[in-house]
Amino acid sequence: MSVNRRWKLKKRPVGDLAPGDLELVSEAVPTPGPGQILIRNIYLSLDPTNRIWMSDMDQYMPPVEIGDVMRGGTIGVVEASNNPGFKPGDIVQPFDMGWQDYVVSNGAQKLQVGPDLPILAYMGGLGMTAITAYFGLLDIGKPKPGETVVVSAAAGAVGSIVGQIAKLKGCHVVGLAGSDDKCKWVVDELGFDACINYRTENVLEALRRECPKGIDVYFENVGGEILDAVLTLINLEARIPVCGLISTYNADGPVPGPYMFRNILMKRALLKGFIVIDYFPRIAEFFADMPGWLASGQIKWKVDVRQGLENAPVVLQDLFTGGNTGKLVVQIGPEP
Amino acid sequence: MSVNRRWKLKKRPVGDLAPGDLELVSEAVPTPGPGQILIRNIYLSLDPTNRIWMSDMDQYMPPVEIGDVMRGGTIGVVEASNNPGFKPGDIVQPFDMGWQDYVVSNGAQKLQVGPDLPILAYMGGLGMTAITAYFGLLDIGKPKPGETVVVSAAAGAVGSIVGQIAKLKGCHVVGLAGSDDKCKWVVDELGFDACINYRTENVLEALRRECPKGIDVYFENVGGEILDAVLTLINLEARIPVCGLISTYNADGPVPGPYMFRNILMKRALLKGFIVIDYFPRIAEFFADMPGWLASGQIKWKVDVRQGLENAPVVLQDLFTGGNTGKLVVQIGPEP
Repeated sequence: MSVNRRWKLKKRPVGDLAPGDLELVSEAVPTPGPGQILIRNIYLSLDPTNRIWMSDMDQYMPPVEIGDVMRGGTIGVVEASNNPGFKPGDIVQPFDMGWQDYVVSNGAQKLQVGPDLPILAYMGGLGMTAITAYFGLLDIGKPKPGETVVVSAAAGAVGSIVGQIAKLKGCHVVGLAGSDDKCKWVVDELGFDACINYRTENVLEALRRECPKGIDVYFENVGGEILDAVLTLINLEARIPVCGLISTYNADGPVPGPYMFRNILMKRALLKGFIVIDYFPRIAEFFADMPGWLASGQIKWKVDVRQGLENAPVVLQDLFTGGNTGKLVVQIGPEP
Repeated sequence: MSVNRRWKLKKRPVGDLAPGDLELVSEAVPTPGPGQILIRNIYLSLDPTNRIWMSDMDQYMPPVEIGDVMRGGTIGVVEASNNPGFKPGDIVQPFDMGWQDYVVSNGAQKLQVGPDLPILAYMGGLGMTAITAYFGLLDIGKPKPGETVVVSAAAGAVGSIVGQIAKLKGCHVVGLAGSDDKCKWVVDELGFDACINYRTENVLEALRRECPKGIDVYFENVGGEILDAVLTLINLEARIPVCGLISTYNADGPVPGPYMFRNILMKRALLKGFIVIDYFPRIAEFFADMPGWLASGQIKWKVDVRQGLENAPVVLQDLFTGGNTGKLVVQIGPEP
């Protein structure tokens, strides 16, 4: 390729992302300056938070500005280097993340890959979403053996890992997902004790059935009605890591909080919002545990890889309609 | 008095407490059995949680059953004792709390009173509401010098103590109260940096003005619109002890949670519901600090004493309309 295709934010979406909100432009492949490296992106991570970054709501990172390249996590290969720390062929995560073919970067994190560790592991079991699952569950949720842990978006990149770690910790684990196929995967392949299809079941009744001892930990990915049903059933001193509220990200206008908010008081529950970067100083804990869990097969991961940078906006929408299972990734170009 | 007047719950209130929800009955003064004591109640504590106990919502203690004496904290004097641990004249907090003249009790907590320590101190600066303020602020809120602490119901029994402790800890303290007189008391007498009259000011604008560095700790007593305004302005890693949600207790039907609920995620905030009994194992910490703070005048307390057990239901309503300043107490009978 001799051009650098780049998705730029043309206007802020209202409600669902729509054609014309992002614009695909072709520019020249940039040339690295002194100390810089040229990276060709291979994989693009698509995450619910991408939709937050497109909006100008008060948020945890600066929003993407109109006219800027859309932000998004990537893994790429070094094509040219003016930096002694990198050589062509290195597999890296650039610090300058974006929906584009190429990026000139002042730095990047080098990834160890090889026959036993595919590049895609860094989008799956060793990726940001797995790190998110690990710290959110263990540091905030603090699950104890015998407790009941409920996970929403259980077939998603974060939820699928959360539930498996909770099983490792000896908990009764109940997932929520949006199709019978997803629920089957979550129970049969990942080992959850149960999974509720929130599209076809009454969530409150189903949670009552699957959580006969109440709910001690709820790993929150979605918000909305599921949060309300969970709050109705939480036990005293329940812990709720708030990782995402995807059901509200496309809302155009104010969204009411949970009607059972009072149970935070009545049950003396803890809620704590967090994002993965909060835990980067403790990343060694994750890498002490997770590679072994992956190698032993105790934790399984799945990536849902779609082809073509040009399709990224359409693929992103699958996160909001439930069209993906596991970590949603767009392949921008071939692995070396 | 030769009769024992007792307020019994006749039916569960719908919305505001109404005449006929409680019924005042006269019974014989009971006789203590072996090991028991007869207590004549002097003061009755009226608290927002009384309204919760009248309802059958899922709550942190069993609700008061229809036909039972209304539950409420009291301080009384021992009139007769078949227990070697107590003698007539002892000032006690009975374990069997209720809206009534007399109670036969299997036990009680003895209180140290004397010329320097009036009985009413145990409803004020050394009472349950002060213990609530102390642990909620310090254990959950964890205020650091220079941080901004916002307190709702700032002229109330809990809020008035919270703000003063936050000042002791070197914080910028902003209260919210329902009248100019209350705000004046909170600022002039208690030393808050500012107080917002939420009935006459736009709360969000006023909080923006009084909290130019954002909000680090919000001590939640009320819920509703004030919580929404605060959530709009919280800083990263804000802490929100959830002590009460009084604006919602009289609601007849579902109450939406805060519209800015998403900021719990965006600002990685912590919310934690709690009640004072959670901290009884650590009560020594309170008694290590508070008596000195009271003696030195660093912490001031106020009781709002109304006369007559027969008036308790009407007086209780003042908590919901803002009719009290400081701790609301009903005097049932004379001090010995």
